Formats: sequence, structure tokens, C-alpha cells
Amino acid sequence: MFAKETYVQRRALLKKTIGSGVLLFLGNDEQGLNYEDNTFRYRQDSTFLYFFGLSFAGLSAVIDIDEDNEIIFGDELSIDHVVWMGTQPTLHEKAAAVGIREVRPSGDIVAYLHKVVRKGQAINYLPPYRAEHKLKLMDWLGVPPSRQEGSVPFIRAVVAQRNHKSAEEIAEIEKACDVTADMHITAIQTVRPGMYEYEVVAEMNRIAGLNNCEHSFATIATINGQTLHNHYHGNKVKPGDLFLIDAGAELPSGYCGDMSSTVPADKTFTPRQRAVYEIQNAMHLASVDALRPGIPYMKVYEQSAQVMVEGLKSLGLMKGNAEDAVREGAHALFYPHGLGHMMGLDVHDMENFGEVWVGYDGQPKSTQFGRKSQRLAMPLQPGFVLTVEPGIYFIPELIDLWKGQKKFTDFIDYDKVEEYRNFGGIRNEEDYLITETGARRLGKKIPLTPEEVEALR
Amino acid sequence: MFAKETYVQRRALLKKTIGSGVLLFLGNDEQGLNYEDNTFRYRQDSTFLYFFGLSFAGLSAVIDIDEDNEIIFGDELSIDHVVWMGTQPTLHEKAAAVGIREVRPSGDIVAYLHKVVRKGQAINYLPPYRAEHKLKLMDWLGVPPSRQEGSVPFIRAVVAQRNHKSAEEIAEIEKACDVTADMHITAIQTVRPGMYEYEVVAEMNRIAGLNNCEHSFATIATINGQTLHNHYHGNKVKPGDLFLIDAGAELPSGYCGDMSSTVPADKTFTPRQRAVYEIQNAMHLASVDALRPGIPYMKVYEQSAQVMVEGLKSLGLMKGNAEDAVREGAHALFYPHGLGHMMGLDVHDMENFGEVWVGYDGQPKSTQFGRKSQRLAMPLQPGFVLTVEPGIYFIPELIDLWKGQKKFTDFIDYDKVEEYRNFGGIRNEEDYLITETGARRLGKKIPLTPEEVEALR
Repeated sequence: MFAKETYVQRRALLKKTIGSGVLLFLGNDEQGLNYEDNTFRYRQDSTFLYFFGLSFAGLSAVIDIDEDNEIIFGDELSIDHVVWMGTQPTLHEKAAAVGIREVRPSGDIVAYLHKVVRKGQAINYLPPYRAEHKLKLMDWLGVPPSRQEGSVPFIRAVVAQRNHKSAEEIAEIEKACDVTADMHITAIQTVRPGMYEYEVVAEMNRIAGLNNCEHSFATIATINGQTLHNHYHGNKVKPGDLFLIDAGAELPSGYCGDMSSTVPADKTFTPRQRAVYEIQNAMHLASVDALRPGIPYMKVYEQSAQVMVEGLKSLGLMKGNAEDAVREGAHALFYPHGLGHMMGLDVHDMENFGEVWVGYDGQPKSTQFGRKSQRLAMPLQPGFVLTVEPGIYFIPELIDLWKGQKKFTDFIDYDKVEEYRNFGGIRNEEDYLITETGARRLGKKIPLTPEEVEALR
Repeated sequence: MFAKETYVQRRALLKKTIGSGVLLFLGNDEQGLNYEDNTFRYRQDSTFLYFFGLSFAGLSAVIDIDEDNEIIFGDELSIDHVVWMGTQPTLHEKAAAVGIREVRPSGDIVAYLHKVVRKGQAINYLPPYRAEHKLKLMDWLGVPPSRQEGSVPFIRAVVAQRNHKSAEEIAEIEKACDVTADMHITAIQTVRPGMYEYEVVAEMNRIAGLNNCEHSFATIATINGQTLHNHYHGNKVKPGDLFLIDAGAELPSGYCGDMSSTVPADKTFTPRQRAVYEIQNAMHLASVDALRPGIPYMKVYEQSAQVMVEGLKSLGLMKGNAEDAVREGAHALFYPHGLGHMMGLDVHDMENFGEVWVGYDGQPKSTQFGRKSQRLAMPLQPGFVLTVEPGIYFIPELIDLWKGQKKFTDFIDYDKVEEYRNFGGIRNEEDYLITETGARRLGKKIPLTPEEVEALR
């Protein structure tokens, strides 16, 4: 938690930006895993954390801008709770520590909101992403889940603040990135043929745990890096495999790291693995070089894709003009995801608000395969924290689909591609802060070149 | 997953027990942590797992006993999904592997259920424990969350089956208990003054991870064992502390282990720690000795409490007749929780159904402090798997409360209790199967006597 003034100032800026109206903030509750009292680890809503700093269940908050009211709704612990949970500061004390003087019982929120509605005022809320939020909005406001879109001015004001990281936020993110880097370095040192993927995960998790961190998202650690949504850890590592890791630490404060690495199961890359890895590395370095205020991140993405096309042309996998190939979307056979995303209290920062608001400044997104997965497109600004994570994959199902459709045969040599069919996938990822003049890597360096990776094996 | 016949037979028995009607089973969906697509680890509903064996999101099932229909509602993967998630068996194939021939699209369930209702039949469901379940029951059946109690005959039939563990279930539980024991042995070897609690947790988690296990519940690992609901791991271990651990492994199949240990931060227990530990140990051994078919578990609990009272009398903390003290509830100052609970696919097996059905055979529960926390009271039967976990605690808040109320001054010497005010808490816990003739410990032995604990330090 930061000092009281941080939260007071954040709320003051939000009120100034929005100007008028009533804002409702839903804190997160505990979630039952297989029965109500057996809960997942607790995670507060990031926007609640950003403006109110309190990380426990049972809270909601209201800011009435016109009345200049800031109220937290929640319940003090009963003596029964104290017996089971130990003596703690009161909710009033906890609220005071983040600059909130008014605390009311949780049960009072419905009457409070109804009074607002009776005055003819709208209640602004953010898009719900948990069923518990949907039930509350339905119960409290009578809005059915299908119509709970959230308030765009509220979204835009929060995005405008949270997209620009303060010095104290950057310090937290950098701590998370340091732990994240240590998790990757440990994994790179650990992987061996004959191990199960989950054994590598266990050693990474240990590093997070020794640093009092959770995971900012479900770890990817797989010999099937070409399967992008892959959270299975039950495969045995074989000689000749590529091992792809995408994992990050989350601090107790909620701030995240997010990095990726690709390691040969053996001590060194095979010549073929190294050749593709070098292309991915060139994409990465070109992207990092391009980071500076003013450059649209979509342009950095396009450039990374062009670097890949040139590289794959040298291997005979692609052909034709690189710029044309990327404009038409042919590169996406090998690079079907985006170059990166905003990162902060969420690993994909504010993804629940919609990428159009967070990464596109309200502009529409492309529908082209590959390009549509770019989460951040707008010109970069100082204070943005983002990931750089180009990748190259050979996805058998996608190859078969496109080949069957004779898609982009001007740009893709499918016969040559067949030779790489079981290659797997390569991704590396670092986290950067956009500065006034360029960009700065956050956290400890992880191995990036083939030589750096092999030096740790 | 077990063989197809296991699931076919489980459903056949359930249909036979209930006799008639329509049963609705809600599978669990993914749950967003801080945005919709950043999910907690996936956990299928245990009853769905028990009867249908399929452990992934997006499923519901209906058994129409009268029509002899068994239907799984869920969607096949689209080509887009296959590209991102790799080639997998179809849902039809997965359902066939658990003996279900009929699969329908998830969107068809509403029409199906409405047809049942129009025929005048009731739809039986189990008590919901997730907001997502409540939304579904509301959307599909029009029942508001406040009236979604669930069907008692359905609950009782499921309890009757799941309370009796089969040989293949016991083998799974025993595997989970072996991993659980290794987690505890590692923790006991690890704790040292100067470490943070989370460092011990990290080493335990590593053992779970190396065995491809999750945690069956949120780990307790604390120098404040007297705080019963304690999932904070941020304290530094001090010389002289007692360190209490309550943690368990969950296998990929969903079966659980649950054990507790108490360790001195130093190499050995202090004489005072040892004296209280010996009393807790005597409670534990007396309870294990008593385990056999036919004995009500409430009786074993009472006996463990009497053993404690006799022990605390020898230390001058309690006085008077032990049987009277336990009947009146005076022991609960030091032993405010129950002796144990059913364990299986849930660590507190089927807790979401209500303990009255799972552990009391429908009989009402006591409201007496301490005794009311006994989760299992009914006579034991072969095939039950349960925990044995007596404890002794010095809870400053509870001592102050009772002392102020002059509660049980015939049984408690509060002046003497003050001397132990900052003692902390002691709990040990093992898992047992009730056999035809007695009981059998499940999993590897963990240190239980003070000598066994000290031997690992």
C-alpha cells in the first residue's frame, strides 16, 4: 500500500476528469473453489486497489463528485470474527489510512444507491468481469447482466490515469520484474530432457514464493509452445524439444511482471532452432530499438512482422515483398498474436475495460487475423509500461487450414513450411517503461540471445 | 479419470437411489481473477467430477431418470479454438469415455429444461456455491438466488454415495496423502528463526508442484497458530515461536489430502511447549484408538476434549470434572473447533451441501460454542475417510472475552491461563479410512510425537 496522499490524489484527479456524477466501485469478494468457504487466493479488483488501496473482501465504494462524498461500504469485524481472525485495525482505521473518512455498513449501499437514482442521477460503474459483480449490479441497480456495459466516460478517465505509471508504481513493477526474471533464469537452468513440465513450474513457483509473490497469470511452461493457450504441464521433455516459458510474478501490492523465454531441452540449440531463434531475436531487438514517445505501437508491431518476413524469406519459408505480406496479413501464419500489451496492476492492464479504450484510444480495431490480436496500437507516451513479445510458431492446425485454403501462396512456401511442421514455437518477452526520450527495460536482464541462453544451460 | 464403468455405475446407483425425476448438474466455469480472461486455476465441481469425470469448463449435465436419459450440454471446439489450443478429442469422444452417448450444444439446455418444466416435472439441483451457478439457475429456471436451496433427496443420495469411498478412490486419496506428508516433512525440516512464513510455504509448494499437485485448500503456515483462520504468511519466525502448518495436496483427479503439524522454531520444544504438545498428542492418539465402525464421531470428539481437560488440569489451567466441563462447553476456550471432517474430492467433503446432511445424517447440530464446529458427528462406517485434528490454543481475544464474562470459572483458572496468554496454538492432523474392524492411516507417516518432530529439526 502507498501513502494516504497517493490515494487522495488519485481520487481527486479522477473527480476532476469526470467532473460530475456518482461513481460506484465494486471490490472483489472471496471465490469458492469447490465449496463456498474453500476459496481461491484473494485478489482485489485492480481499480479498487488503485483508488482505495484496500485488499480484502466485502467492500464497495461510492464517489459522489457533486456532493464531494467518498464512502466505503463494508462491515466491521464482529467479536466472533476477531476470535477466529485475530485482532486487526478496524475498517474505519483501514479506510482512514487511504484518506476515506466515511465508512458505512455494507447493507446500507442499496438504500444509498436507490436514493441517488430517485434524485434522477445515473450510477456509473465499470464493466463487470465476475459473476459476483453481475449479481450485485442486478440486485442493487436492477440492471440485468446482458445490459451491464459500464460507463465509457468512467472507463476513459480510469484508463487515462492508470495508463500513466507514477514513480512509485514503476518501482513496484520493477520489483515484480526482478522476481519474474529470477523465475525465468531458474527455469532456464532447470529444464532437462526427461523432466516433466510441472517440475520446471515447481522450481519457478518456488522463486515466486520465496519472494512472497503470487503469479500474475497462469504460467505457460511447455514443449508445445506453438499451442498459444497452453496451461497443461503434464508432458515429459524430450531431447530436441524447444521449451517455451511465459510467466510473471505479482507482488502483494498487486503489481505485475510478465516475461517469456525459450530454451532448448538440450544444452544447445540445434542449427535449425538457432536459425529461427535468431529471427525472433532480431524482431525483439528491432522492436525495443523503436520504443519512444510518439511512435504508434501498431507500427512497431508491423515492423517486427516485417523483420520476421525477411528472416523467413532467407530460410525459404516466405517470399515476396515483406511490407505487402504484413499489410495483407500473411505473416500471421507464423506470428498470430500481437507484439505486446500494457502492464500494471493487471498483467494485461485493464483488459476488462476493452482494448479499444486501453490500447486504441477509442479507435476501432482491425479484424484481420493476427493484427486483431494486437492489444496496444496507439502512439506511446512517457509513463506507459508495456511488454515486447514477438513470436514465431509452426502451428500444424493453422498450416493445414491455410494450406487447404491456398491462402497467401504468393508469400508462403507451404512445401518448405511442411519441413518445419513439428518445430514448435519461440517467444521471448521483456517489460519496458516509455521514458521522455526512449524506453527503459524494467527488472533484471533475462537471457535473450542464443548465446546468453546456452550460457545458463 | 477412472474407467468408463466407474462413472456408469455411479450414475446407475444414483438413479436407483432417487428413483424418479430430473437431475441437473452444473459444471464449473473458469473464474476471472482481475479480468475475465485472467483465470484462477480451473477446478471442476466435485459432484460433476464424481458422476461425469470431465474436468473442464463449459459443461452441464442432465439425468432424466424416468426417460433414462443422460445428456451432457457443452460445445465442440471451433477451428479457431483448435488453432489456439491444439488438437484434442472431441467433446463427443470425451463424453463417450465416461459412458455418455448424448451430447448437445450448451445453448440447448434452456429449451430442454423448459420442456421438462412444461411437463410438470421439477428440476432437482444441488445448492449453488458460486455466483456463476446462481446466475445460471436464475437464467435457466427463473429461481432467484435467495430461493436456490437445492433438493434434499438429491443431496442425500449424493452424500450416501460420496461418503463411502471405493477402493480406487482410496488409492487416489492415499496418493494425495503421501504428497501431503512430504510437504509437511519438508516444512518441519525447513522452519528456522529469522525466516519468513512464506519461505516455508514456498518449500512446501515446491513439493506439491514436483508431484503435479495443487493445494486442496489455502495453506496455513504461521507463528500465530492460535488465530484459526490465518492465511497470512508475512511474519518473521522468532526464536521460541511455535510454527503451525495445515496444508494438503490435491491430485489432478481432484482427490485431497489434509494434514497439520506443529514445530518449534528452535531445534527443540521448550518444556512448557512440550507439556502442552504432549496433551495434544494424547488427544490425538486417544482419538485414533477410538476409530471403528459404529462409534459416533461426536463421541470421539468429546473423548478428545476430556483428555485435554485432564491434561490442562495437570497444568493447573482447568479444574473440576472433565466430563462435566466438556458437556457444558468449557473446554472450547482452548479447543474451539471440531475433531475432524469427511475428506474426498473436497477437503471438507461436500461442505456446500451442509454438514447436517454430510456429517449428521440429517440430525440437527448443537449450537454450543466449540461443539457446533464439529463437522462430523454420526456413527462411523467402513469406507468413510476423515481427518483427526484435535488442537489446543491460547486465543487472547477469546480469553479476554470469557474472563470478562466470568464464564466457566468452575472449570477454568483464568489467572493461570494468563501465564500462557502468548503461547500460540498446537494442532496435528492425520487422515484415516474407517475399515471393517477399525481404521487405517492414509499416506506416509508424519512426525507426531515431540521426539519425532525434534528428530527432523
